[in-house]
Amino acid sequence: MTVSPEQQEEIEAQRAEIQPTRRAVAPGLEDILYQPIPVLDHGFVRVVDYMGDDSAVVQAARVSYGRGTRRVSEDRGLIRYLMRHRHTTPFEMCEIKYHCKLPIFVARQWIRHRTANVNEYSARYSILDNEFYMPAPQHLAAQSSANRQGRAEALSGEEAARVFALLREDASNAYAHYAEMLNETDEGEPADPSRRGLARELARMNLSLNFYTQWYWKIDLHNLLHFLDLRADPHAQYEIRAYADAMLETVRRWVPDTFEAFMDYGIGGVRLSAGALDVVKRLIGGEKVTQKQTSLSAREWRELMTFLDREV
Amino acid sequence: MTVSPEQQEEIEAQRAEIQPTRRAVAPGLEDILYQPIPVLDHGFVRVVDYMGDDSAVVQAARVSYGRGTRRVSEDRGLIRYLMRHRHTTPFEMCEIKYHCKLPIFVARQWIRHRTANVNEYSARYSILDNEFYMPAPQHLAAQSSANRQGRAEALSGEEAARVFALLREDASNAYAHYAEMLNETDEGEPADPSRRGLARELARMNLSLNFYTQWYWKIDLHNLLHFLDLRADPHAQYEIRAYADAMLETVRRWVPDTFEAFMDYGIGGVRLSAGALDVVKRLIGGEKVTQKQTSLSAREWRELMTFLDREV
Amino acid sequence: MTVSPEQQEEIEAQRAEIQPTRRAVAPGLEDILYQPIPVLDHGFVRVVDYMGDDSAVVQAARVSYGRGTRRVSEDRGLIRYLMRHRHTTPFEMCEIKYHCKLPIFVARQWIRHRTANVNEYSARYSILDNEFYMPAPQHLAAQSSANRQGRAEALSGEEAARVFALLREDASNAYAHYAEMLNETDEGEPADPSRRGLARELARMNLSLNFYTQWYWKIDLHNLLHFLDLRADPHAQYEIRAYADAMLETVRRWVPDTFEAFMDYGIGGVRLSAGALDVVKRLIGGEKVTQKQTSLSAREWRELMTFLDREV
Amino acid sequence: MTVSPEQQEEIEAQRAEIQPTRRAVAPGLEDILYQPIPVLDHGFVRVVDYMGDDSAVVQAARVSYGRGTRRVSEDRGLIRYLMRHRHTTPFEMCEIKYHCKLPIFVARQWIRHRTANVNEYSARYSILDNEFYMPAPQHLAAQSSANRQGRAEALSGEEAARVFALLREDASNAYAHYAEMLNETDEGEPADPSRRGLARELARMNLSLNFYTQWYWKIDLHNLLHFLDLRADPHAQYEIRAYADAMLETVRRWVPDTFEAFMDYGIGGVRLSAGALDVVKRLIGGEKVTQKQTSLSAREWRELMTFLDREV
Repeated sequence: MTVSPEQQEEIEAQRAEIQPTRRAVAPGLEDILYQPIPVLDHGFVRVVDYMGDDSAVVQAARVSYGRGTRRVSEDRGLIRYLMRHRHTTPFEMCEIKYHCKLPIFVARQWIRHRTANVNEYSARYSILDNEFYMPAPQHLAAQSSANRQGRAEALSGEEAARVFALLREDASNAYAHYAEMLNETDEGEPADPSRRGLARELARMNLSLNFYTQWYWKIDLHNLLHFLDLRADPHAQYEIRAYADAMLETVRRWVPDTFEAFMDYGIGGVRLSAGALDVVKRLIGGEKVTQKQTSLSAREWRELMTFLDREV
Repeated sequence: MTVSPEQQEEIEAQRAEIQPTRRAVAPGLEDILYQPIPVLDHGFVRVVDYMGDDSAVVQAARVSYGRGTRRVSEDRGLIRYLMRHRHTTPFEMCEIKYHCKLPIFVARQWIRHRTANVNEYSARYSILDNEFYMPAPQHLAAQSSANRQGRAEALSGEEAARVFALLREDASNAYAHYAEMLNETDEGEPADPSRRGLARELARMNLSLNFYTQWYWKIDLHNLLHFLDLRADPHAQYEIRAYADAMLETVRRWVPDTFEAFMDYGIGGVRLSAGALDVVKRLIGGEKVTQKQTSLSAREWRELMTFLDREV
Repeated sequence: MTVSPEQQEEIEAQRAEIQPTRRAVAPGLEDILYQPIPVLDHGFVRVVDYMGDDSAVVQAARVSYGRGTRRVSEDRGLIRYLMRHRHTTPFEMCEIKYHCKLPIFVARQWIRHRTANVNEYSARYSILDNEFYMPAPQHLAAQSSANRQGRAEALSGEEAARVFALLREDASNAYAHYAEMLNETDEGEPADPSRRGLARELARMNLSLNFYTQWYWKIDLHNLLHFLDLRADPHAQYEIRAYADAMLETVRRWVPDTFEAFMDYGIGGVRLSAGALDVVKRLIGGEKVTQKQTSLSAREWRELMTFLDREV
Repeated sequence: MTVSPEQQEEIEAQRAEIQPTRRAVAPGLEDILYQPIPVLDHGFVRVVDYMGDDSAVVQAARVSYGRGTRRVSEDRGLIRYLMRHRHTTPFEMCEIKYHCKLPIFVARQWIRHRTANVNEYSARYSILDNEFYMPAPQHLAAQSSANRQGRAEALSGEEAARVFALLREDASNAYAHYAEMLNETDEGEPADPSRRGLARELARMNLSLNFYTQWYWKIDLHNLLHFLDLRADPHAQYEIRAYADAMLETVRRWVPDTFEAFMDYGIGGVRLSAGALDVVKRLIGGEKVTQKQTSLSAREWRELMTFLDREV
């Protein structure tokens, strides 16, 4: 379960508290503020605060007074211009804060993005819940033979059953022994008064990387888009991509013009090397080109043909 | 003049726009949102956006759901604990955005703090206004003979008059020639149609460092406090300290508990080296100690005696 | 085992390759370059590259040409002055690169320091070794009852035996099942040709947080000292402190003057709040002061008395 | 003059000091270490330290022991792969330190890149030299009418003469008055003993933005390439591009494989939006396409046609 009934109640109470502000407000994001968006089997992301909107990007680009008259079409054009020409600083003027619940191995990939502020649940200080990630059957992928860090189709039948059994059994044992070593009731009393508990900061090391942790994660819009560009990419591991996809939707609600420009120039765009650009020009000129006749490696050639929807 | 009547009108209009939000609201800061706080002769700082409040710091430290029941005294104690033990990440969960108008030589000091987002008025793209900083008479300080980067008392009489005349004359000439080289009317037409204007990106180099620029500057609360700790310090140059002082007041309005803790542990506190701590212990033990009997240099000794309100 | 014989041989070969350079050289660090310093049961840190020395700090502070005449005593004094007054940028002019092998739960604490460059061994791409951390008996600490994130004395007897057995058994099972799910020989062939292997990026989640990972970690001297200030602190978890202590020794060899100043002003120094400073003044004045007569909380009072070596 | 005879002598002395090291050495860069590369009329950049080489990038990508056997062709391929797929962290493992002398208005653009370490000459503490930038005649560009931040061809004849006269006269006056206000001889004595000098930190504000400053600037290879990508771009202001071009040459000497990949994928490459990619596919398919038949704006269309060497 992603959120307990008590937590859901608390969220509802928080959502009910509405106050007046002079700041810019993003109605599309207010609609879902604090609401957990489920990800994977027990995880979620939820927006818990934000600052600015599309007009803050425009305002920064203009360094003008106030948000000024809203000239919607011009604002959209300016945002597209900024995105196209990598004028990134105006996008840094918006900020968003997420509360995420995620498996530790996902957290380890995520944290490599250093341009964010993070406060994580501390297993030195507190006790982790008994919740671990088990892939859905369609995501229990075999190792790809072509790509060392890729996946092939899902395991099935006995093979899948065996893997699920191992994952579940090991995680269950790990938690049971974690609890035994801690020797602590929910009230903080010794479960077995005849013995001492192992320090929390040590006991946690018995847990496996599929256990869930949680954190607050705060980032500016430019760096968020960079994160999403890398993590919503098909080459990213499915489990972190699931979070990135959920967050993309929050960006769409928050800053619709920026989102549109990002989908066009960022995620939907491609980069061509000098060599690839040369091939494109020759193809447009009607030339028949094979890989051997270019400066591209076989791998680069395949990538380019994929971009161009051509057979390799 | 800090703000023109048109700008003030725009600000009023913006302040009048009040909308509902589910986010945390800091009433003390809403009161002055968008209002310019005058600094120096033509400058200002004004808060144009913010995110979070004292409870966001507490929430991050607890990584709990929602802002929870407000237990004011406990929250205050937790914030003091975090500040004392340099647990800085919870303070990164709040963010603030300023619009500043400031002399270029101040901007050059300011920008050394790299942990902020900045959008500055572009003199490549636009034309700077004819506004430059002239110190008030009491701030026209002579060079200190004791401290190479310090000030002695203010110049006065003829000496002051001569300096003011030079500063004013050079800045006025610089601007007049800047305008002449640009050869552009306010409407973007050639002022003198018989000749071409120099590129804006070149003409600007004729302006002196006391001309005003402006920018949006966005930073998290932890890094803001670090900035203020250094720039509201008596060793900072007066002109940047004037900005820091104005910003301190905005922090007091925004996050009162954090402000209080910061004044006690940050700005009001001192750091003692191992050697200085040893001296303090000996003094408490009733020993008469002279500098020669310690590991401190003459300079360190003077600094310690100043901290302790003792004669050197 | 920390390093295999093959690896040790490779290291020796690398150490034997000596080339001329015009750059500043730190002989104390060259002596141990590439050599692993053992930490915990299977871990290590080793310096694999560095840039600059004490004179680079001095040079940056002087922004002068070249390293100039070496006036050792003056350089030392300048470095102490910079450290005392938190002029941190000159210390950013030196850089060091470590290769570390460390348990994943230590890596998770470590990575929170964002001002470094990191390349970690990828368990998406490669297969982790069967090496996990088991505390030495004297570090198998019970949970502290006074401090939620602290340790009491070590467990012993049957209690310790039980914990060791659980940790060892769970880690061994986790690895055995990891290997079974991967179904891969060292040569990358299927171990059991009748079935497929689980994707590496999924299988790794069965490993527990005490398994070892490794990375290259590069950081400037200022940020390294900040890291060491926090992580060589008695409040840091023992397991990361062990790494910090080993790294302190590399700093001593690299930049001896900076190291000395850091031990005096950084690690060996204390910070006093405004309230604590007031107490110190009163104590020096001969007053008998009790906690009730001050603005300090009970906790702050205890901390201050500890600094001053006084009974609480 | 870029460097005085005394400075050149000091540089020669420093270059003559050669010591053995176990670190990676980049011979191409050692050849020019400490040597100033002249830029603009009085400026320079010179490499004063570095760490790592191409093999450090490869090593980080492999997280292996030592630099291993040099398999040049494979290393080159790996570096190209990393660059193509934006795997940027291995490039962060190399570091370089420059000493630059540059006009203040260039320094103001440059400093926006925040991911570097900087120590600048302090005009609070010291007195600036009487050196200011005057464009060469071919760079005294008129304002572009098409692009608000662009240049048209150079001014000439009387127009140019007038601009040169204004720039020179204002800068000369500014310095003369700066010196008069300081009232200090080279030995730090009052020039005119009958009066006091203005504080250095104030007097400097009379100087204009074309005066030269200098700094040490240290950055990792990935962030350096990002800087060069933006600043060696034809859209960058000529004066900063001149520095970027000089630095590109130092990169070529330092890390030849990385340089080659960067020229192909970075500087020489292009980015296509989703809409532009669609146009390219249609052109390759033999379709005749006009701007109206696409989702591109007139401006985007022009940019794409320029990439493809087609008439607009």
